[in-house]
Amino acid sequence: MDFKYDVIVIGAGHAGCEAAAAAANLGSKTCLITMDMNKIGQMSCNPAVGGIAKGQIVREIDALGGYMGLVTDKTAIQFRMLNRSKGPAMWSPRAQCDRGKFIWAWREILENLPNLHIWQDTVEELLVENGEVTGVVTCWGVTFHAKCVVLTAGTFLNGLMHIGHKMLAGGRCAEPASYHLTESITRHGITAGRMKTGTPVRIDGKSVHFDLMDTQDGENDFHRFSFISEPRHLKQLQCWTCFTNEEVHDTLRKGLADSPLFNGQIQSIGPRYCPSIETKIVTFPDKPQHQLFLEPEGETTQELYLNGFSSSLPMDIQLEALKKIPCFKDLVVYRPGYAIEYDYFDPTQLKHTLESKMVKNLFFAGQVNGTTGYEEAGGQGIIAGINAHLNCHGGEPFVLGRDEAYIGVLIDDLVTKGVDEPYRMFTSRAEYRILLRQDDADMRLTERAYQLGLVKADRYEILQKKRAEIDRIVNFVSTFSVKADKINDALEKLGTAPLTHGCKLVDLISRPQITIENIAPYIPAFQAALDKIEDRKEEVIEAAEIRIKYKGYIDRERTIADKIHRLESIRIKGKFDYANLQSLSTEARQKLVKIDPETLAQASRIPGVSPSDINVLLVLLGR
Amino acid sequence: MDFKYDVIVIGAGHAGCEAAAAAANLGSKTCLITMDMNKIGQMSCNPAVGGIAKGQIVREIDALGGYMGLVTDKTAIQFRMLNRSKGPAMWSPRAQCDRGKFIWAWREILENLPNLHIWQDTVEELLVENGEVTGVVTCWGVTFHAKCVVLTAGTFLNGLMHIGHKMLAGGRCAEPASYHLTESITRHGITAGRMKTGTPVRIDGKSVHFDLMDTQDGENDFHRFSFISEPRHLKQLQCWTCFTNEEVHDTLRKGLADSPLFNGQIQSIGPRYCPSIETKIVTFPDKPQHQLFLEPEGETTQELYLNGFSSSLPMDIQLEALKKIPCFKDLVVYRPGYAIEYDYFDPTQLKHTLESKMVKNLFFAGQVNGTTGYEEAGGQGIIAGINAHLNCHGGEPFVLGRDEAYIGVLIDDLVTKGVDEPYRMFTSRAEYRILLRQDDADMRLTERAYQLGLVKADRYEILQKKRAEIDRIVNFVSTFSVKADKINDALEKLGTAPLTHGCKLVDLISRPQITIENIAPYIPAFQAALDKIEDRKEEVIEAAEIRIKYKGYIDRERTIADKIHRLESIRIKGKFDYANLQSLSTEARQKLVKIDPETLAQASRIPGVSPSDINVLLVLLGR
Repeated sequence: MDFKYDVIVIGAGHAGCEAAAAAANLGSKTCLITMDMNKIGQMSCNPAVGGIAKGQIVREIDALGGYMGLVTDKTAIQFRMLNRSKGPAMWSPRAQCDRGKFIWAWREILENLPNLHIWQDTVEELLVENGEVTGVVTCWGVTFHAKCVVLTAGTFLNGLMHIGHKMLAGGRCAEPASYHLTESITRHGITAGRMKTGTPVRIDGKSVHFDLMDTQDGENDFHRFSFISEPRHLKQLQCWTCFTNEEVHDTLRKGLADSPLFNGQIQSIGPRYCPSIETKIVTFPDKPQHQLFLEPEGETTQELYLNGFSSSLPMDIQLEALKKIPCFKDLVVYRPGYAIEYDYFDPTQLKHTLESKMVKNLFFAGQVNGTTGYEEAGGQGIIAGINAHLNCHGGEPFVLGRDEAYIGVLIDDLVTKGVDEPYRMFTSRAEYRILLRQDDADMRLTERAYQLGLVKADRYEILQKKRAEIDRIVNFVSTFSVKADKINDALEKLGTAPLTHGCKLVDLISRPQITIENIAPYIPAFQAALDKIEDRKEEVIEAAEIRIKYKGYIDRERTIADKIHRLESIRIKGKFDYANLQSLSTEARQKLVKIDPETLAQASRIPGVSPSDINVLLVLLGR
Repeated sequence: MDFKYDVIVIGAGHAGCEAAAAAANLGSKTCLITMDMNKIGQMSCNPAVGGIAKGQIVREIDALGGYMGLVTDKTAIQFRMLNRSKGPAMWSPRAQCDRGKFIWAWREILENLPNLHIWQDTVEELLVENGEVTGVVTCWGVTFHAKCVVLTAGTFLNGLMHIGHKMLAGGRCAEPASYHLTESITRHGITAGRMKTGTPVRIDGKSVHFDLMDTQDGENDFHRFSFISEPRHLKQLQCWTCFTNEEVHDTLRKGLADSPLFNGQIQSIGPRYCPSIETKIVTFPDKPQHQLFLEPEGETTQELYLNGFSSSLPMDIQLEALKKIPCFKDLVVYRPGYAIEYDYFDPTQLKHTLESKMVKNLFFAGQVNGTTGYEEAGGQGIIAGINAHLNCHGGEPFVLGRDEAYIGVLIDDLVTKGVDEPYRMFTSRAEYRILLRQDDADMRLTERAYQLGLVKADRYEILQKKRAEIDRIVNFVSTFSVKADKINDALEKLGTAPLTHGCKLVDLISRPQITIENIAPYIPAFQAALDKIEDRKEEVIEAAEIRIKYKGYIDRERTIADKIHRLESIRIKGKFDYANLQSLSTEARQKLVKIDPETLAQASRIPGVSPSDINVLLVLLGR
């Protein structure tokens, strides 16, 4: 074997798999090094993909030619579109997956990529010469030479697990931690810190009184994560819900003195929006109950994941507390919840390509950048993989704008603002969220991926056909006139006000009571136009309807985004000696030196850089 | 959770899974503690089950109500009956399995057993009071109380892996070793030693020139591992074969100085019949080539197992040598071969129940007893599980005789003769091998398991029906007379001598050219008798035919076995103060003290105890 590669990816989690696949598919000779081939794409915590804002990221990864969506669809045991009651910007797909099959689905994809090798081993050392990556060395003493290295080590770097007072080294329950690599990276001036995350108990389904729980069913319509998936084929399963109560909370409180989160044993910060149950009862002491979700781990297993009950309290406290919930009175678990601390690297040390500013051709993606979530990891992974390939073979850096993708928001937030706690995506983090919908990720991104070469012609053709069909429907309704006397009976039936005189069909569909599908039967020409949709009919109709109903919002955000684009286009990198710009505030000087923003727009998003600081820069630029 | 159990099983490999299932199915409250639930039933080395003598053991485990056969059938991707050209005592089923699905099939079975809990953790300490087991303590500090403990830790105890000069701690590639437990056991006077085993490279199928290899296909007839399996449902795959050559051997020889097997780094002994490739070229320096088998690891993976090329030579030597074989000229591997050293415990310290002689209610099964092979492990596991249950709930010890089962031979060899290298089963180890066939494991063992309660009525009924049908066919042929003039045309067609006068049908079927199936069409009454077989027709016909054709051999071995049984029935345990029996040879005195045999027959099998020593004992017994 020739241990010389274009791109080496360290770690085969959600970031690493996407990074390796992207680089290999673009034509880079790529090696994915993983400690355990049987844990490729392992879902370390919740056996679920997607959710609010996260679901959109998975759709974006898919639109770019990544695989998380395909793997999710193939292994889904429950699918739901969250936030249906809100506007389509908020709709978010979410799926429970079969944890075991998820791994094998990823393996099948990766093992069959022509440019990708997989190597089972642990990387212990990064090789750097003259500020530039040259390769890695593994624990078996193998030297791999590479032009680029992508680090996607998840929670493994100096991983330390906690349950009560007990601490154990490890990267994940039952898996060894990775040593020496952090030190081999910080040696080159890159700053590392510690973060913390946690996971709940895994429950033996035989012990649960399901009759004392509420159920939550999936949906089985046309929605998928991937724009090119086949129908789901696994058995679709229920989830269950229940609530904690005061007795549970009293029991948990008994353990607080022994909680590594509260007794000083864990100093690092955990994910704010995925708090442990002990954090919840401390933060909300008056809340009498918290909802818990009991989620199946697979088609054939009794193992259940107790979403909402992440904990590192002593084991007996975790179990005693849960037994105070009626459905868990006879509780048996496979293992308790635990917390884990791990190393991350300050992401403000990265460019928007996720390349290190200090070490050329070294990329970071996923939890090592201080994020949390499989989706956030995957989104960074594909961008890092693409840019690692581009560094090897030439080409403009591939960066997504904040108005193009949640992935763009995510990375811009990371490199501009940094993190002081695990970063999770929310729709509220995106200022243009009506532009970043789950339904149109393909329209936003697939063409860019096609230009890059990551999406091939077959897929691009699907996109073009879909676009044409949507345009055709939107054009039809925009030009088709309805007469009051012909439609008013229908409008009455649909519970909406009658017309006094004719209007365009588009105006009717804009009404909240009317949809393309409920009005079409009353307008034969329209029905005929819909019937002509050959492929992806429901998808086309949904997309057309969103474009029609939300046109005002979409146009307004587009206008704002285009305005901001002007600031984005003002490149300032290398133009200022911030440290000596006395007209800037002290904080702005320090932050601008640290981040060294690419554009004026990025500068304006740096915490501590005020509008007046931006004005100073604008003046200096002569604008 | 109430951490009090009847039986605790440490380790969920092939021994542990069978032990836990047996104890739980018999009614013991059982806890199976495993370091990683995703590795339950992991096939650490070859993704195959069965083979010569080993296949028989799996059939025996199945006949006793164990699960290895069912799991193998469910996940088989290639099945063959080996040794078809030899007598039926030598027929041995073998299957390639999907390594990943094997784990999930085991998990599904274990997770659904009502009396079984699974706990993911690492046992670090054995609790013993007054020479009796009371429980275990895990690395998370959990104390489990138990009446019996079964240790099935495989290669994990103080596991140390080797590739060339490089050594790494671990229980299996990518998995941590288990510490402290050995020391916690030897503290009670139990002797431990070190053994070694090895595993070959795992190959990326994309890199192999299959057109330069020979193929080996499976069979798809009625044979299965389990007597109650459904038809195989996975895609059936090919294996491939090739040969090493002098160039390969020359390259390997370059690495011998750096081989941990030959440079003193590994002192412990590996499996004689599964030698590393470097051992083969050293042991057989004149052999110009060795055959290698390239075996698929699963339905959906590119990973291939290179059977016959186990090695702990430096990685570059392993790869360089393989590239000298034309089909591997572009070789890419997922990981190199490696050797592993681990702790085992001298099995002569065990009773035939696999309970320790020193610590009451402590059982050992599998590789910790110095054996090698999944089948040998599973066979010990089920016996240990059964006897652990019996120790908890009362009942005679469950021991299989050497004329009853390969499992009986295996355990008697272990506890009587001990091991100085990893013990693997062969047909030659069984003195009554015509009695221990794969086809009649159910007839030998299922009734015993039914009496025990491990096999339920439904399965016992299947056995009784099958027995009745076989008896009916054997009776038919024994009493049915054929006339020369009516059959001679048929005999000529079948290439066998004509009859001069009539005979019983049984005499014809005993001829080598004649089978039940080829003669039946010529004898309408016989064909009608066969057509009446409602269930398992091919299985019944095969069993009847073996009984008919091999009657002479079977009867002769049965007679010898019954004679030996007289010695087996002479119980001597506790009757002699061997150390002071001056009429015994010194060696016999020492060995008899050490083994303290149950019966005179066992005494006669102890290495170093001669027939004249046995005569001394017989005289002293007054016989």
